[in-house]
Amino acid sequence: MKQRIWNAIAGLRGASPLVHSITNYVVMNNTANALLAAGASPIMAHAHQEMKDMVNIAGAVVINIGTLDEYWVESMRLAIRQAEALKKPWILDPVGAGASPYRNAVLKELIGIYHPSVIRGNASEIMALAQVSVQTKGVDSVHQTEEAIGAAMHLNATTGAVICVSGATDTVVHQAKRISLRNGHPLMSRITGMGCTATALIAAFCALNPENLFEATTAAMALMGVSGEMAAAVSSGPGSLQMHFLDILSTLTEEEFNARLTLEETYATIQT
Amino acid sequence: MKQRIWNAIAGLRGASPLVHSITNYVVMNNTANALLAAGASPIMAHAHQEMKDMVNIAGAVVINIGTLDEYWVESMRLAIRQAEALKKPWILDPVGAGASPYRNAVLKELIGIYHPSVIRGNASEIMALAQVSVQTKGVDSVHQTEEAIGAAMHLNATTGAVICVSGATDTVVHQAKRISLRNGHPLMSRITGMGCTATALIAAFCALNPENLFEATTAAMALMGVSGEMAAAVSSGPGSLQMHFLDILSTLTEEEFNARLTLEETYATIQT
Amino acid sequence: MKQRIWNAIAGLRGASPLVHSITNYVVMNNTANALLAAGASPIMAHAHQEMKDMVNIAGAVVINIGTLDEYWVESMRLAIRQAEALKKPWILDPVGAGASPYRNAVLKELIGIYHPSVIRGNASEIMALAQVSVQTKGVDSVHQTEEAIGAAMHLNATTGAVICVSGATDTVVHQAKRISLRNGHPLMSRITGMGCTATALIAAFCALNPENLFEATTAAMALMGVSGEMAAAVSSGPGSLQMHFLDILSTLTEEEFNARLTLEETYATIQT
Repeated sequence: MKQRIWNAIAGLRGASPLVHSITNYVVMNNTANALLAAGASPIMAHAHQEMKDMVNIAGAVVINIGTLDEYWVESMRLAIRQAEALKKPWILDPVGAGASPYRNAVLKELIGIYHPSVIRGNASEIMALAQVSVQTKGVDSVHQTEEAIGAAMHLNATTGAVICVSGATDTVVHQAKRISLRNGHPLMSRITGMGCTATALIAAFCALNPENLFEATTAAMALMGVSGEMAAAVSSGPGSLQMHFLDILSTLTEEEFNARLTLEETYATIQT
Repeated sequence: MKQRIWNAIAGLRGASPLVHSITNYVVMNNTANALLAAGASPIMAHAHQEMKDMVNIAGAVVINIGTLDEYWVESMRLAIRQAEALKKPWILDPVGAGASPYRNAVLKELIGIYHPSVIRGNASEIMALAQVSVQTKGVDSVHQTEEAIGAAMHLNATTGAVICVSGATDTVVHQAKRISLRNGHPLMSRITGMGCTATALIAAFCALNPENLFEATTAAMALMGVSGEMAAAVSSGPGSLQMHFLDILSTLTEEEFNARLTLEETYATIQT
Repeated sequence: MKQRIWNAIAGLRGASPLVHSITNYVVMNNTANALLAAGASPIMAHAHQEMKDMVNIAGAVVINIGTLDEYWVESMRLAIRQAEALKKPWILDPVGAGASPYRNAVLKELIGIYHPSVIRGNASEIMALAQVSVQTKGVDSVHQTEEAIGAAMHLNATTGAVICVSGATDTVVHQAKRISLRNGHPLMSRITGMGCTATALIAAFCALNPENLFEATTAAMALMGVSGEMAAAVSSGPGSLQMHFLDILSTLTEEEFNARLTLEETYATIQT
């Protein structure tokens, strides 16, 4: 597994898969930079007239609802339909799930009518989203990854999507498979859009390996965690962390990766 | 006063107040990062359907008109009304006041019909805004903070808002109170959105201390100025300044703060 | 020529020309920072009601279609009309030319009905755009600057605009004149918006020297290339490259510039 993950990271650098992102304004610049640093090529566009065209040339699609509005939600629908028609993976980032009924209604549609390939969120978002799939309900506290595993398994069972709960521990859930990664650093949460960056990288690895989305998601989270951890070790705060993180995404070696990666693979019965 | 300001800076780090910003596209990423570095939590959203919800969970609201258009101005109105209904502070950043009749008309409405808790702008913007409150008139030169004090006092008297004029000297005006801070560095003006960052930090401190907006505004400007000055001392240009600034926002110590802070408190009669 | 280019770079720092950009969300922050670092002043706005006003106070206008939609395309038209009415230079960045029929249709209008002063794109974009001026056709591969020279000459002949093809070699084409610059570094392509930054800097130099757009464009590309090359020499990856690039834009000396600049001036017959 570790070797295949490293091969994916190394492979991404030469492959330059196109990732089309409909994402939020706040993180566009740094997620595009993270994609480039890791070896992928970002496209960001939202005009309804060209959504099909952009999906046609992309290897995977990111749908991130961070700064959604009516126009952008329609852009998302158009991109998702084309991705599903062409059997290309699309990755959902349910930013702020539970924070408003509007956000919940959009998410309910996106996971109810369509079929995300992967969903990545923090524990609170995954827990809110699992409730959304049953009923609309807000979330008003911050949770740990461990508290969201049940919700992740429920979401996986109801949507079929690979679910990634990110946080101090990152856990990837699909059917009976579960992988937990304990890399990363608390300082990463002091940079805006680190979660959105994780989602963008998941899309890049899914474009590279659409046959195994579980492993692709794991590879993205492993690259994030190890790079963030190494960056934090040489940073004086969140400003330098952002810089070192981008540098390390593009220069990380197999030796450094293997020395850091903490990955636990388990098989669990579904407890829904 | 100095001790209370430091206590606010230290307090912000543990409190993580939510700041909802309706702000311009150019600065979303770096103002979100500044809020996170200082210890606050940013929300950025603009869909009409969720403006009330976002204000409901936020401790303070930023209204920054930098890249305004019809849809976003309506988002601002919805957020402001809810903030006023819930008596939560909202902070106005009149970016580009005086640059176009449209911008002036929007500002005239925002300070005429609604009641900003704090207004922060550079000298030209504050002078334009003071004229806007009387009649729409453009501004075509760059002014010093000292030239805008009369306009700030006039704006304070007509709107009731705490007024902050930022520049080489930052001056905070409210009724008979006036505080001037002489920290910061000229290189800060070579990074986009430093003013917008100041406004975002003001909102964070207002969320923490809604009972004393004058002191909250002063705390934000003190943190900005001292951090920018320290960052400039170790920077080779605007690129490294941005990085060091974010680092220092999150690591500044009481000792460093006290060694740098230059704050002058005066009481003036209103000269309108 | 080299001396005049350096004089322009030095002159920009004191002149602070206003550049109004209608540009894409992804690069707004870093192109604004590049303009500030080089000595120019950025304006970014898009409300239809104020497009004329913003062009009135600007020295040059950037039209970058990266994240276009219907509203923004109308903003572009309004800004372009005013720029042409006032004989102010406007610079077209045809981001993603060839990627969708919508993008091609917009570009066909922008170069068919209006008259860009300068067009800057990578080789694929310039080749797509030259075809657009004949017929709408997609581009599906990455090309070298040298392959796009014919397209650039054709575009120059049909639009009258100075054409800049950027890449490992940057070539500026106008009538019988052609300048090639071989500065820069491959790592620059791993940061989002480096091309958009080049376009923004071209606009700044055009605002400074509207009488000689060919030389203004060359000055911008020389500043980009030398600064990027120097930044890459001290960078560990794309994150640190972005930081050093901004620093060097603002601190580059004549000595450093002359030691690096590789500029080849040729006169060619038009081969269309």
